Amino acid sequence: MTVAAFCGTFSPITLGHLDVIERASTIFDKVVVLVSPNSEKEMIYSEKQRCDWIKEACAHLNNVEVDVQSGLSVASAKAHNATVLIRGIRTVHDFEYEKNMASMNKLISGDMDTLCLFTKDQYANCSSSNVRELLKYHQDIRSLVPECVARDLMR
Amino acid sequence: MTVAAFCGTFSPITLGHLDVIERASTIFDKVVVLVSPNSEKEMIYSEKQRCDWIKEACAHLNNVEVDVQSGLSVASAKAHNATVLIRGIRTVHDFEYEKNMASMNKLISGDMDTLCLFTKDQYANCSSSNVRELLKYHQDIRSLVPECVARDLMR
Amino acid sequence: MTVAAFCGTFSPITLGHLDVIERASTIFDKVVVLVSPNSEKEMIYSEKQRCDWIKEACAHLNNVEVDVQSGLSVASAKAHNATVLIRGIRTVHDFEYEKNMASMNKLISGDMDTLCLFTKDQYANCSSSNVRELLKYHQDIRSLVPECVARDLMR
Amino acid sequence: MTVAAFCGTFSPITLGHLDVIERASTIFDKVVVLVSPNSEKEMIYSEKQRCDWIKEACAHLNNVEVDVQSGLSVASAKAHNATVLIRGIRTVHDFEYEKNMASMNKLISGDMDTLCLFTKDQYANCSSSNVRELLKYHQDIRSLVPECVARDLMR
Amino acid sequence: MTVAAFCGTFSPITLGHLDVIERASTIFDKVVVLVSPNSEKEMIYSEKQRCDWIKEACAHLNNVEVDVQSGLSVASAKAHNATVLIRGIRTVHDFEYEKNMASMNKLISGDMDTLCLFTKDQYANCSSSNVRELLKYHQDIRSLVPECVARDLMR
Amino acid sequence: MTVAAFCGTFSPITLGHLDVIERASTIFDKVVVLVSPNSEKEMIYSEKQRCDWIKEACAHLNNVEVDVQSGLSVASAKAHNATVLIRGIRTVHDFEYEKNMASMNKLISGDMDTLCLFTKDQYANCSSSNVRELLKYHQDIRSLVPECVARDLMR
Repeated sequence: MTVAAFCGTFSPITLGHLDVIERASTIFDKVVVLVSPNSEKEMIYSEKQRCDWIKEACAHLNNVEVDVQSGLSVASAKAHNATVLIRGIRTVHDFEYEKNMASMNKLISGDMDTLCLFTKDQYANCSSSNVRELLKYHQDIRSLVPECVARDLMR
Repeated sequence: MTVAAFCGTFSPITLGHLDVIERASTIFDKVVVLVSPNSEKEMIYSEKQRCDWIKEACAHLNNVEVDVQSGLSVASAKAHNATVLIRGIRTVHDFEYEKNMASMNKLISGDMDTLCLFTKDQYANCSSSNVRELLKYHQDIRSLVPECVARDLMR
Repeated sequence: MTVAAFCGTFSPITLGHLDVIERASTIFDKVVVLVSPNSEKEMIYSEKQRCDWIKEACAHLNNVEVDVQSGLSVASAKAHNATVLIRGIRTVHDFEYEKNMASMNKLISGDMDTLCLFTKDQYANCSSSNVRELLKYHQDIRSLVPECVARDLMR
Repeated sequence: MTVAAFCGTFSPITLGHLDVIERASTIFDKVVVLVSPNSEKEMIYSEKQRCDWIKEACAHLNNVEVDVQSGLSVASAKAHNATVLIRGIRTVHDFEYEKNMASMNKLISGDMDTLCLFTKDQYANCSSSNVRELLKYHQDIRSLVPECVARDLMR
Repeated sequence: MTVAAFCGTFSPITLGHLDVIERASTIFDKVVVLVSPNSEKEMIYSEKQRCDWIKEACAHLNNVEVDVQSGLSVASAKAHNATVLIRGIRTVHDFEYEKNMASMNKLISGDMDTLCLFTKDQYANCSSSNVRELLKYHQDIRSLVPECVARDLMR
Repeated sequence: MTVAAFCGTFSPITLGHLDVIERASTIFDKVVVLVSPNSEKEMIYSEKQRCDWIKEACAHLNNVEVDVQSGLSVASAKAHNATVLIRGIRTVHDFEYEKNMASMNKLISGDMDTLCLFTKDQYANCSSSNVRELLKYHQDIRSLVPECVARDLMR
């Protein structure tokens, strides 16, 4: 049984994240989504809030689990029996960032490999930072995030 | 059971290819290596020769199969029950090429996804074209290819 | 009155090309689409055929003209009273290619500037070479090209 | 009549910015330069100061207006009757940043398109951050900025 | 006699830095390593500590000097009689950053040129920021840094 | 004494090449320019012609030698006592190409290192292929090549 971990801040989860999770859930036996507790990225939503959105957005996927990351992401993934990290990549900038992260994670834990999925073109602008930027100006985010996130943040 | 297909010309197989196959064989239940019969790349070795090298280099991996591709790679992968294509990426140029190919393959067969592994840094120069270039000038290729390829091509 | 020229091989025109033409037609007073007669790209369709497809696809745009390029594209654009060349860019590879072309065209004709539009994400895979590749394997091209092209090429 | 908006912090305006404005002023009927009031970039000069420099540098261009941006840049552009945003791009990093911004601005306002000009090679290093870095070390900035900026900042 | 300067924060020195210094020391008559006193990068080690590590790691190289940078790096290099700056580049991101820096340094001091060495593939992940990140999580850094750094930081 | 080799097709030499040679001639004791005899690039000028142009363009540099390459470029460089290869890089595409070549050359000859200079911005479009393209359309090439080349090719 292969368990894949998808680590991130999910602040908030976007349709791009959801697409990666859905695709991974058809490839791997189980997908564990691990929500980073303390990130350098803007963390305006609580851990619980971020997890709840992922759980609601993934309610239709019965092999997806959501948890808060404890410690290093690679260690947390291992603690959840994951042997593979999955990542979505959209841009050349992402590619170089993820290549370095994959190399670091392999250094920390030699048996933890990283697999990348290309973000679908229609989700190319679905980044959490874009969502937060749009919200700052009271714009519509429904084309970027799952329904539950839009519902809660566009009130 | 998840079967992953690794399509290519493998002209010849390099240590970079072998590393991708080895890593994929620990992640997926089965890996099918599909050798392209007619490519635009320089095809100086026969299909049989290219398959034989892969088989010998992968002899230690008991869930790896090697076959010649018939028709479109995505169709050939499907015929071998693969639901996932795997690719190794080294450079930004590779990234943009593979992103387009993944998009095309998804268009042809909506349920065929592409997963990328980052080529390990030590194999960054292990491309088949580098091998062919070195051979043209009678150089040592042992740091780029499996032993069986070096044995046969450096005679 | 500003006339913009859009030069290319259009072999065949794609939905990405059409999107660039439509957007340009709302920005500029007139858009002249100039079809390259002799290109290094695979030129399997006649000049007339390529022009006819563009004309049919652009029938709803009343400020778009289609013509065959004579000589250098920048000279042909000028002969059609264009003062601006428009280009669509999708990838980093495109960006570097177009940057060089714009520099060359400015060298040849100092008053001819180049303006780029970003290809919409949903058309990211709409390249003529992708279309030709799909046709080679008898695949459906309807999501990549205007209706008239699909009608003629998928017979 | 087509109005193009060029939004930015202009902190301070560089010869690269000025080149984009000059070229745009020959292509579009009017160019509105919109100075961002509150940016994340280092904002060491007042809004008035930044506007005054642009006005002085563009005094020879009779279809250029300068104003302070109010709210979202796309909204401010619209309020000035602009239907097009113009941007200068120099690097691959710029390209990916601008592609995302263009996509976001189209999301916010479907009828606002973004057009990019390639920065001329001789202005490749004319960024505001380079200017500020040079000033920090009391270096000559005359090759990077309009005369009025050099005059005021190199006192 | 050609003196090359290698400026940086070296916080701490990595095997990638050491490789650049070693290679430069065989090409140039003298290499001066200049440690930046006040950088925007995380500067958790003292100037003296960073210099001492470099000196110990370079003890086997008899044409390498280490000093603290005073003022602008290009001025400090000149004060040490360097006519060339050397840099290691690993990624596309590095490339664009270094290209701009080289252009700026030439602007400041027309006779100071920049030469780049490609970081060896096996040191692709040897960045100071990776080292600091690993240390934050109490991970082994021995494959990234000279022995003396590992000895002092992994206590 | 450090000898640097600059290998290429120089078909024809451009102002970008000349700038690299001039800068290298101030850094290294001797610069050997090695003209490739059989390249995959369009080779419309004879070896002698290409050498003669370089010699004439470099007549003012007394530590520059020009020769035809025999065999592998790295071997030819070594035969001329060079210990360093120099390259000019302009674009991201160049960067990835040169990184691979440097890695290959180090593989062939462990003690041959590659140093890159950034092409000056004003020479960003000075490529031999641009020159040949312009000539095909009888355009002025004087801003791209040394005087002697323009004199001979624009007759």
